[in-house]
Amino acid sequence: MSLSDRLLHCSIADLSAFRPWTIGGVQIGWLRHDVAEALCAYPSVFSVGTDAVALKPHLDSFDYRSAAVGDVVRALAERGIVQGWRNEAFAVAASYGETPLLRLERAAVPVFGVKAYGVHMNGFVRDGDRIKLWIGRRADNRPIEPGKLDNMVAGGLPFGLDPMANLIKECAEEAGIAEPLARRARPVGVIAYRMLHEDLLRQDTLFLYDLELPADFVPTNADGEIAEFRLMELDEIEAILSESEAFKFNVAPVIIDFLVRHGHFHPDQPGYCELALGLARLSPPAG
Amino acid sequence: MSLSDRLLHCSIADLSAFRPWTIGGVQIGWLRHDVAEALCAYPSVFSVGTDAVALKPHLDSFDYRSAAVGDVVRALAERGIVQGWRNEAFAVAASYGETPLLRLERAAVPVFGVKAYGVHMNGFVRDGDRIKLWIGRRADNRPIEPGKLDNMVAGGLPFGLDPMANLIKECAEEAGIAEPLARRARPVGVIAYRMLHEDLLRQDTLFLYDLELPADFVPTNADGEIAEFRLMELDEIEAILSESEAFKFNVAPVIIDFLVRHGHFHPDQPGYCELALGLARLSPPAG
Repeated sequence: MSLSDRLLHCSIADLSAFRPWTIGGVQIGWLRHDVAEALCAYPSVFSVGTDAVALKPHLDSFDYRSAAVGDVVRALAERGIVQGWRNEAFAVAASYGETPLLRLERAAVPVFGVKAYGVHMNGFVRDGDRIKLWIGRRADNRPIEPGKLDNMVAGGLPFGLDPMANLIKECAEEAGIAEPLARRARPVGVIAYRMLHEDLLRQDTLFLYDLELPADFVPTNADGEIAEFRLMELDEIEAILSESEAFKFNVAPVIIDFLVRHGHFHPDQPGYCELALGLARLSPPAG
Repeated sequence: MSLSDRLLHCSIADLSAFRPWTIGGVQIGWLRHDVAEALCAYPSVFSVGTDAVALKPHLDSFDYRSAAVGDVVRALAERGIVQGWRNEAFAVAASYGETPLLRLERAAVPVFGVKAYGVHMNGFVRDGDRIKLWIGRRADNRPIEPGKLDNMVAGGLPFGLDPMANLIKECAEEAGIAEPLARRARPVGVIAYRMLHEDLLRQDTLFLYDLELPADFVPTNADGEIAEFRLMELDEIEAILSESEAFKFNVAPVIIDFLVRHGHFHPDQPGYCELALGLARLSPPAG
């Protein structure tokens, strides 16, 4: 699989298996048709139409919406429709920075096809003109993509934390990076994608950071989410990305973006344009 | 005008003023309807339909196509339809890296709405944790955007030169950067856009480079294209981008991309997502 194909894996063109769900007339997610039909059991919360699902308008506050949808999510978990309970709340809004409309258990986010946000940090070390990247391997008990390769530090954005605060928290928990060093992480852009993963729609926006680490820094994981770290050559990382699915699905584009930004690829190489623009073309339409 | 609006300025959604033109059934450009009608005068070269214009299939080699279209372009220049003759050939292909189908005088590129390529280099200086960027002001006699602010080094990709060779040439001509230093420029990505500029369609792909310069380096222009250089603070550049149209139309996104990649903006600022993803959304569909 070429690196460009690895990016295509993170996009979906055909949404015919899904229908929109709306709050106050504004679309905030996509429901798979069978999930939408399952919501017919909760007529006090959802109006289920064949073309779209609307949250009932009497749920007109953040607290009402969070409580009513929360009850449905717990019922869906008992029915096995929501799986892998995280006990972690994400904010749901039409787009980033808008006032959240409700809070939603993280495990329900892809079931309701709402936008989620995360931070991903490339921890790297310079060796003269060369760069090496710290790569983590996810613990075998992770609910998503166990055992896969990952960024040094990454995490979903929980309700009420801004990206930098979340990054500082994750730096400490995932890699033992103290706050003063974590604060040197540089925001370097955003990747957004809409993709099918395990038959659910993920609409994620990742805030990307680079952190240059001292050559003698050794990461240590505190929260059990990362089994081991390795400082890897960029050529080895490129080969793994090209030849295997060893990297977590959404870490592949983050690292391809890192490789592009740091000059690992050259415009004179075949496919450079396609790869660099492939990152841009992941991004679903605005809104 | 917000920086996001500055990006929107580099995109066009409505192509109804244009019709496709094709070679061998493959679209390679867009012609404004009045330009398409003007091509009715050259029935041995173009088949002009109301929905599309096709190059005549008997023009079945690079040399035949270049000669026949070249004759038409000279005639269009005499009629004032092609303006600002450059005497510089660009390669025309369906997409980058494919075998060129013909060579075309640069002044005709936006008239025929074909894809063009260029290199843009951000020349910067570090001052502790801060960064300053060298900005050029275009000479008052430039055919495009005279007097506007520009990257330190930038240039269209002429027929037969690859991006790095072109960058080295432009570094010497535009800023007096010798080859060993120019070779340290790092490719950092690609920006593509399709926009209306002076009523013509520009479909450009820019190969972006960053070059860190020594603090004592002073650029000198040799080709008369840049009137003066200034080493500017990023805050000042951001203010000029926000408040004026002083930057050349396609340099604005290049510099916004630089500011995003170098952490000048933070995810916690309002509009960060919109700005970072706005760069990605410039990119027209693949092909």
